[in-house]
Amino acid sequence: MSTVPALEAVSADSGFRRTEIERRPVGPRDVEIEIDYAGICHSDIHTVRDEWGGARYPVTPGHEIVGRVRSVGEEVEGLAAGDVVGVGCFVDSCGRCEQCTAGLEQFCAEGVVATYNTPLPDGTTTRGGYSGAIVVDEHFVLRVPEALDPARAAPLLCAGITTYAPLKRWGAGPGRKVAVLGMGGLGHVAVKIAAAMGAEVTVLSQSLSKQEDGLAFGATDYFATKDPATFEDNRGRFDLILNTVSADLSVEDYLSLLGVNGVLCSVGLPTEPYSVRPGALVGPQRVLTGSMVGGIPEHREMLEFCAEHGVEAEVELIGAEDVDAAYDRVVASDVRYRFVIDVTRGLG
Amino acid sequence: MSTVPALEAVSADSGFRRTEIERRPVGPRDVEIEIDYAGICHSDIHTVRDEWGGARYPVTPGHEIVGRVRSVGEEVEGLAAGDVVGVGCFVDSCGRCEQCTAGLEQFCAEGVVATYNTPLPDGTTTRGGYSGAIVVDEHFVLRVPEALDPARAAPLLCAGITTYAPLKRWGAGPGRKVAVLGMGGLGHVAVKIAAAMGAEVTVLSQSLSKQEDGLAFGATDYFATKDPATFEDNRGRFDLILNTVSADLSVEDYLSLLGVNGVLCSVGLPTEPYSVRPGALVGPQRVLTGSMVGGIPEHREMLEFCAEHGVEAEVELIGAEDVDAAYDRVVASDVRYRFVIDVTRGLG
Repeated sequence: MSTVPALEAVSADSGFRRTEIERRPVGPRDVEIEIDYAGICHSDIHTVRDEWGGARYPVTPGHEIVGRVRSVGEEVEGLAAGDVVGVGCFVDSCGRCEQCTAGLEQFCAEGVVATYNTPLPDGTTTRGGYSGAIVVDEHFVLRVPEALDPARAAPLLCAGITTYAPLKRWGAGPGRKVAVLGMGGLGHVAVKIAAAMGAEVTVLSQSLSKQEDGLAFGATDYFATKDPATFEDNRGRFDLILNTVSADLSVEDYLSLLGVNGVLCSVGLPTEPYSVRPGALVGPQRVLTGSMVGGIPEHREMLEFCAEHGVEAEVELIGAEDVDAAYDRVVASDVRYRFVIDVTRGLG
Repeated sequence: MSTVPALEAVSADSGFRRTEIERRPVGPRDVEIEIDYAGICHSDIHTVRDEWGGARYPVTPGHEIVGRVRSVGEEVEGLAAGDVVGVGCFVDSCGRCEQCTAGLEQFCAEGVVATYNTPLPDGTTTRGGYSGAIVVDEHFVLRVPEALDPARAAPLLCAGITTYAPLKRWGAGPGRKVAVLGMGGLGHVAVKIAAAMGAEVTVLSQSLSKQEDGLAFGATDYFATKDPATFEDNRGRFDLILNTVSADLSVEDYLSLLGVNGVLCSVGLPTEPYSVRPGALVGPQRVLTGSMVGGIPEHREMLEFCAEHGVEAEVELIGAEDVDAAYDRVVASDVRYRFVIDVTRGLG
């Protein structure tokens, strides 16, 4: 058992305070990681502010973690002290069910153990990356390729895999027209990944305020969704729309932008039900679907892909004392494009 | 130009009468077909009774056609008088657009020419298979393999391709659990095809009244959708649900029967919009989609597949004088499983 510094929220409106938390002893298959960087994901905010329900206070969020191996258990192979590694949205699963054996640990039949806010059999609750160190089963520890900057790689552990997996599954690549809806933390990484995959990438954003960035990230076109002409001019154009926005969506407007066999895939979770006329799906054989992070093998593949293609997140490094203010700025869409807590400065 | 006997409806409630219609002269790439069998598809009824709007009277329906080649144009290769051939839901398309060149003629950018009820530039409207003969461009004429009984093959031209295409696209095959929703004209063919593809097939039908048939067609399980236990007992079970029912659907009840990455594909067209919580799609990465017939190359593939695996429709042969009564019986679900007009007896 070790005691490490951490940030925690004790209620939906408490904001963060510094605390000390316990990390379990390093078991035979465990990896102890000294955390250097922790990205701030919008879902951290939803959880901390209990907007999805189910927050188990005190909450220490953080599932975009990059750090260095401090020690490894006796059975761990292939990782050694000093290695740069990452941890994403989950840290354990049964390892035996159909989903786990298929490398889709996020859908573990017994329930995946999320990096934070999951109750454990011993009565404790998992605590995430806004902390000095973490102990994780080796299966869920990901080597971060040397070509990637550790701070800019941290958001890949959630924003990266969340967009890489559906882009790959639904065929983003040469000759394919992909639209990324939303240019926030997820969207800006999606643009880079889809462009690196060789697709023709269009950004659909509320306004044109981030157009210059979008084109720099690899998009060839950029349209404002608040302009009705966007929907007229792009009717039937796309093979895939990746919706990274959690706001409620007028689904049929976006389906109308898809060609035959086109796919509208959401990775956000709006609260209102979609309403879709069956004819909007049947006639043009369109697909309405969603995607949730990715499995561990796909995390590894994604990190290698990003290293090979130079895909990193655009980040704004902040100190522990800035997290509350950063949360407000994320909600106000005032970040380009991901806040990352620089844990190397300490946690205050 | 030739004059052939046909059935036609002159208004939504007229029923059918015998008439004579004109068929165009046999052009260089045309095939003249003497019609032997014409299946009765539920969409014939929707059109004749103007339930979808857009009926152009007089209407001669019929897009599940099997007959014998009577003559061919001078440029036609590979077909000769006497060959047994079929015609499905469409008889022409531009042949040049992206969809046509990809073998997806049903989505022709200039609009596909349906076998009946499509207005032509010369002011006439296409007339379908409830007639003595038809003249069709060779590209849309399908050789019916010898192994298939012509009357029992006729429904494959719509019911067969409509179910084969999505079963194939969405991976019905060994190790996959497929549910067919509805055991009517489409559903009973879908069960046979999915079983022939090697999938584990379950029928979901309103009641158990057709259970014995369903199991004989290749299903291993059969459940009544009016029994709430069906939804509890089969939660998360299926990889694919093929919905052949046009009735309004409680989509989320059926999504709940799908496992991770499961697909709910509709080929019917209910009138009410689907209502779906985004979480029902995103979390388990489920797919909500639809499918519309298939392209000409896939028709050929489907017919070969059915010949190889002995897949034919269950039909009740009727004479021209029985068509009005047959329509009422189709609406009452009182047919096992497809009415086929025996045109060889003449049209009255």
